[in-house]
Amino acid sequence: MKIDVLTLFPEMFAPLDHSIVGRARTLGQVEMAFTNFRDFSTNKHHKVDDYPYGGGAGMLLTPQPIFDAFDAIDKKRPRVIVTTPTGRRFDQQMAEAWASEEHLIFLCGHYEGFDQRIHDELATDEVSIGDFVMTGGELAAMVMIDATVRLIPEVLGDQASHEDDSFSTGLLEYPHYTRPAEFRGLKVPDVLLSGNHAKIEAWRREQSLLRTYRRRPDLLERIELSKADKKFIESLRD
Amino acid sequence: MKIDVLTLFPEMFAPLDHSIVGRARTLGQVEMAFTNFRDFSTNKHHKVDDYPYGGGAGMLLTPQPIFDAFDAIDKKRPRVIVTTPTGRRFDQQMAEAWASEEHLIFLCGHYEGFDQRIHDELATDEVSIGDFVMTGGELAAMVMIDATVRLIPEVLGDQASHEDDSFSTGLLEYPHYTRPAEFRGLKVPDVLLSGNHAKIEAWRREQSLLRTYRRRPDLLERIELSKADKKFIESLRD
Repeated sequence: MKIDVLTLFPEMFAPLDHSIVGRARTLGQVEMAFTNFRDFSTNKHHKVDDYPYGGGAGMLLTPQPIFDAFDAIDKKRPRVIVTTPTGRRFDQQMAEAWASEEHLIFLCGHYEGFDQRIHDELATDEVSIGDFVMTGGELAAMVMIDATVRLIPEVLGDQASHEDDSFSTGLLEYPHYTRPAEFRGLKVPDVLLSGNHAKIEAWRREQSLLRTYRRRPDLLERIELSKADKKFIESLRD
Repeated sequence: MKIDVLTLFPEMFAPLDHSIVGRARTLGQVEMAFTNFRDFSTNKHHKVDDYPYGGGAGMLLTPQPIFDAFDAIDKKRPRVIVTTPTGRRFDQQMAEAWASEEHLIFLCGHYEGFDQRIHDELATDEVSIGDFVMTGGELAAMVMIDATVRLIPEVLGDQASHEDDSFSTGLLEYPHYTRPAEFRGLKVPDVLLSGNHAKIEAWRREQSLLRTYRRRPDLLERIELSKADKKFIESLRD
């Protein structure tokens, strides 16, 4: 996969040098390029922003530098993602779909955002990571890149380790415990020390259901539940 | 405000040196400290993870290094935020509440996550930035820090520039345009060039409503609409 990022702050992308994404880049499983679109400004002061028509606070990113930077990217049929709080909500299904693309281009906004013509002409996907406002689109792009790159088949060698993730099953994940069995008087649940795998599986399923029921009941309506699942949820309602 | 971050990857937090958050740190409006909890591991190889009880793929963060690193932080009544996909969804209201706190501590997970005792004993807030899975909690913490710090009153000098943000009004933001009035044949809407401020305000309100109606109808149910708003939305339904 090739990922291009158009941004005013290429140096902000240092987090993608680390951990799983960093390793994927080193191994050539994903190739990334960061372009500062300020370099494409034809303005003699390399200006990239201007006042909004019709008034209002803040500055907007003007079309010319971004259109020209976009034109300079070698591309066939890329998916062009614009990070914006007014976009569709990014989720695990979107990350899974993007993980099989050949070329992703991210346009990162800053200040009050983009001139609308940039959205209208260049974006294939307008995406938000949530109902909150950030100082720029860079962190949002990094979040989407991280969530996507880890799903590229060759990147996460041990496939099993994301099959149980929250959202992959449609439920929130069950609680995890590791050694020691007791720490500062806090004990690991007995069932996990029992060695009885059928019991452990049943406990984990119930914990996932319980947690989802309490924290995100909206998720329960979207998935198929077994008879045992339904009976357990009924028992929670009593 | 003081922000402490416990993480295995302090060097990933470089994005917080830039832009508005970087300036707030330089001006002393927010103080940040990053602690690598691996430094607190009493294991001779500085190990911080271990296998999950009851089986399963991946490694878990073990309690000792994190509890000890947490104990070493000078604190009164901090808000302790654990980033986890099973947490409450981060949103603008949460960012606004956090912006008036004196001390935030972020615990960043990695690998398959934390031993549950870390959640149970240390966290005051378990928070997710969305329904997707990342390789670690660092980017999620940076997103929350960015969205929160920009709302600290002394940070964003020009208060007006976030009052119109998406979500602050409960609606998605209207489209913005800047110069030139025509670029590659693409024109700015006439109304914005008219100089008629009442018309411009009305157009912007309708654009906000239209965009919210099309992309995030769920938001319309949560806010109070004027008679004119309701009439406009009715006209969209026809």
